[in-house]
Amino acid sequence: MILDKVYSADDVKKLSFDEMKSLAGEIRELIIKKVNTTGGHMGPNLGIVEATIAMHYVFNSPVDKFVFDVSHQCYPHKILTGRKEGFTNPDKYNVYTGYTAPEESEHDLFKVGHTSTSVSLACGVAKARDLKGEKGNVIALIGDGSLSGGEALEGLNNAGAMNSNIIIIVNDNDMSIAENQGGLYDNLKLLRETNGQAECNFFKSLGFEYLYVAEGNNVEKLVEAFEKVKDTKCPIVVHIKTLKGCGLAQAEENKEAFHWILPGTLDEDKGSVDFVENYTSLTRQYILDKAKEDKTVIAVNAGTPGVFGFDKEFRNSLGVQYTDVGIAEEHGVAYCSALAKGGAKPIFAVMSSFVQRTYDQISQDLCLNNSPVTMLIYWGGISGADATHLCTFDIPLISNIPNMVYLAPANKEEYLAMLDWSLEQTEKPVAIRVPNVELISTGVEDKTDYSVVKFKVVEQGEKVAILALGNFFELGREVKEQLGINATLINPCFMTDIDEELLESLKANHSVVVTLEDGELDGGFGEKITRFYGNSDMKVLNYGAKKEFTDRVPLEELYIRYRLTKELIAEDVKNLIS
Amino acid sequence: MILDKVYSADDVKKLSFDEMKSLAGEIRELIIKKVNTTGGHMGPNLGIVEATIAMHYVFNSPVDKFVFDVSHQCYPHKILTGRKEGFTNPDKYNVYTGYTAPEESEHDLFKVGHTSTSVSLACGVAKARDLKGEKGNVIALIGDGSLSGGEALEGLNNAGAMNSNIIIIVNDNDMSIAENQGGLYDNLKLLRETNGQAECNFFKSLGFEYLYVAEGNNVEKLVEAFEKVKDTKCPIVVHIKTLKGCGLAQAEENKEAFHWILPGTLDEDKGSVDFVENYTSLTRQYILDKAKEDKTVIAVNAGTPGVFGFDKEFRNSLGVQYTDVGIAEEHGVAYCSALAKGGAKPIFAVMSSFVQRTYDQISQDLCLNNSPVTMLIYWGGISGADATHLCTFDIPLISNIPNMVYLAPANKEEYLAMLDWSLEQTEKPVAIRVPNVELISTGVEDKTDYSVVKFKVVEQGEKVAILALGNFFELGREVKEQLGINATLINPCFMTDIDEELLESLKANHSVVVTLEDGELDGGFGEKITRFYGNSDMKVLNYGAKKEFTDRVPLEELYIRYRLTKELIAEDVKNLIS
Repeated sequence: MILDKVYSADDVKKLSFDEMKSLAGEIRELIIKKVNTTGGHMGPNLGIVEATIAMHYVFNSPVDKFVFDVSHQCYPHKILTGRKEGFTNPDKYNVYTGYTAPEESEHDLFKVGHTSTSVSLACGVAKARDLKGEKGNVIALIGDGSLSGGEALEGLNNAGAMNSNIIIIVNDNDMSIAENQGGLYDNLKLLRETNGQAECNFFKSLGFEYLYVAEGNNVEKLVEAFEKVKDTKCPIVVHIKTLKGCGLAQAEENKEAFHWILPGTLDEDKGSVDFVENYTSLTRQYILDKAKEDKTVIAVNAGTPGVFGFDKEFRNSLGVQYTDVGIAEEHGVAYCSALAKGGAKPIFAVMSSFVQRTYDQISQDLCLNNSPVTMLIYWGGISGADATHLCTFDIPLISNIPNMVYLAPANKEEYLAMLDWSLEQTEKPVAIRVPNVELISTGVEDKTDYSVVKFKVVEQGEKVAILALGNFFELGREVKEQLGINATLINPCFMTDIDEELLESLKANHSVVVTLEDGELDGGFGEKITRFYGNSDMKVLNYGAKKEFTDRVPLEELYIRYRLTKELIAEDVKNLIS
Repeated sequence: MILDKVYSADDVKKLSFDEMKSLAGEIRELIIKKVNTTGGHMGPNLGIVEATIAMHYVFNSPVDKFVFDVSHQCYPHKILTGRKEGFTNPDKYNVYTGYTAPEESEHDLFKVGHTSTSVSLACGVAKARDLKGEKGNVIALIGDGSLSGGEALEGLNNAGAMNSNIIIIVNDNDMSIAENQGGLYDNLKLLRETNGQAECNFFKSLGFEYLYVAEGNNVEKLVEAFEKVKDTKCPIVVHIKTLKGCGLAQAEENKEAFHWILPGTLDEDKGSVDFVENYTSLTRQYILDKAKEDKTVIAVNAGTPGVFGFDKEFRNSLGVQYTDVGIAEEHGVAYCSALAKGGAKPIFAVMSSFVQRTYDQISQDLCLNNSPVTMLIYWGGISGADATHLCTFDIPLISNIPNMVYLAPANKEEYLAMLDWSLEQTEKPVAIRVPNVELISTGVEDKTDYSVVKFKVVEQGEKVAILALGNFFELGREVKEQLGINATLINPCFMTDIDEELLESLKANHSVVVTLEDGELDGGFGEKITRFYGNSDMKVLNYGAKKEFTDRVPLEELYIRYRLTKELIAEDVKNLIS
């Protein structure tokens, strides 16, 4: 094993090309085994093994600075920078995160999980170096769909004009998570087809020098290219053609499915899984049905169709009624706003964590123009996710923007009714938080008119009123039971507005109001309720997440930390009413 | 007067080229006179007169759809679409807004004031047309610096790949608000110098067909070009070279100063204005001094240096310690985060309204990485501004992001102390809301350590505690006087965190807490205070702006609407304690 000789990045420099080739095979094997065990990013890491080895061979990290984009391509880098036991030893599989993490190693500069950031960050690192009169190379590694994000494009425009050393390695595997989207990718294709010789060159048009490496999974060719650009005095793009999933037949063939996999995906006997309806499959079918009925219904997403179950069958079935804008949420929201103004019925699907990339477009393009777009926010809620992919901030982000209606359904029928209402109304932008819990059906059709802000009193009681929002509606029911008194149980449905009439009426025979929301408390739903009661005798207890970045903290632990269990909440309430 | 014959867009079609030339002169005269009277965007509108006439001559609005970017280039368009009295009649100068406004005319599709949105919006309009099987051209007009914004770049990448009619007119006047920034602008220069013939073409690299018009202030040439691209079946860019400020000598010479002017700028006798120190001039001088002392201090902004008084003298004096990233706030924040990680001391200046363009970068690139950047948020507060440029949302936007410290100074000495502390500390990202009120000096040096969350008790009293934040600290003092009781006056300083110890201590001898903040209440500072007291007997009254887009509503009217006067607040408090 070559890897036995490699403890740190410096050891890579001592290897021969043959040894590096063997090393690539060994790393690949480790990644396949580990990712198939824990789940994680498979294809992106397999494609970038040789480039990572060549980077460490030619450059001198951490004096030379590597900035990873998305950073889900950093597994080979982790293996080469003192963290290989996280891949060789199954007991330590979960010691290191799936992203670059400065707390793990001086070779990781930033904690990064959202895409399209590396070029901008590299510009800052390079400028700081220059201001301090230091030397060294700054290398950004970008690709895998990230190029289409606004931050990457802004960064490239600025990097191209820097009069200094900055090297952008573009990892071109001809894929985003799904297919690439946009004219830029046609230019990459042209460059691949002309061996980098085409005159019309996106990177050159932005001021970069440019070098093409056709064999991006060949260490020797990569080393040669990197040696050439090392210590450059000007911005340069090294465009390397790699194979996503390289070395794993299934991943090479099915690039989208193997971008990120669940544990055990490669195992032969996975057993048969019975289909269980959930909010994702429900939404998928709903869109298919609506699109068939109405040719102006169009489903839009920004480069992550898999998250929403928008598989190839779905895409083919929708045809022109489907747009994947690529990783470009800003464009996605503006595009949908204009679609709606033009009389179409756009449904924009987006993950809670990634909706953060498009605040201003929600405010200006969408809400200021009151365009009747339906936004579906997926995965919103407290979770044990990486700090880079938390989904706890969408309520504060979305619901304080004027004109928006942000809804939190608590069951299947309510969700469907909200979808129907949103698609048919023409007055307002609507966001719906797709429940991030097991599907619950009441079996009773919901005929609510959601153009009126009205909280639903599900069980009328007294003394204590529990306002339990969306994902946490069932928790509210449990709290009521735990309290053992005839408390009032309310399903607020709306996160953007309060039902003043109802809240006012509660004053008559309630002394405590409890709010439950599956997200950050600061700036969220509960605070609006508390503000309403500020000048009254009503006591209000708000439950939700603390304002913090948590990093792979188990959900159960977070629930305890935030007192989000029926027992702890009931305890607090009892203390207040006793 | 040709204009006497022009009541609507259709009338333009009947004119000869000579008449259109005369019309251009007449429109120019109206704009100069009107803008010099009311203030507004001068240079951008003077540059685009001929293009607007040619657009209305060739295309058939509103069947063909015009989408303006920034929309501060829409004055000629307004004059030609039934709104000329807003320019001919001084009594009606303020009837129409300075931006496109659908409520004014069917020729205005969107309410737009932030830049870089037109291409994405045009994509949506074009796609809706196609879904509905309709005909017509969709034309986006972009330029004047807007191309460098992430949303524009994402939009171009998507537009270039559309298999349908979409026309992007790039108004290239070789300027942003200040100089253009980024490699892209070198490509535009190359294209101008080669009469559009250079092979390396940014727009072609994104999939567009391309047409260059060297004489962008010549109606005949423009008409010829637009006729050529009309009814195109594929995405095409018409790159027109125009002169910013065309027809007004001062504006042609001093393009930056005449981008937007104050009323009376052209009048000969403006009288001499005495220099009065304000928070902008104070900040400007502070940065100059610090940069001289410490070569790692660097001032960064995103294309609006004039807002911060970063004039040519300032820029020249700072030299390499100054970066204007162009209209590219996302890049700006990430760049600063990396500068800080690299050991430099970046100060990022940004307008409250435009900080909205970079939520995710503040969260992920900056706060998650805990980079010690100093962000200065200008103009934050309630105002009579256009709906597109409100500055009421920065507190909810910024202060609910973990790790951030967002400070609101109430006087000069406090502001300077916060700046000093922020620049020297290395632990956290810090934002400071530059006061948007007259400069107040206490004359006493502030020696507070802002690494500890501590609200300042300025006057210790009882019964009622007034927490008056930043801009509204003096209002707090007035409320106390108006109340005529020995109320406690508190300067909270922090918007991101609460001083629990102090709040707890108030319970002993206070029954009412009042919070005052110059911004939106929903998701803001006051709600954090109210939540803290939710389970107690403390009554809390929150004052700030309602969640709404206001549009040129006079400030005094808003203050009444929000009960933000000392009299109304005192009345509410008295009702509560009586």
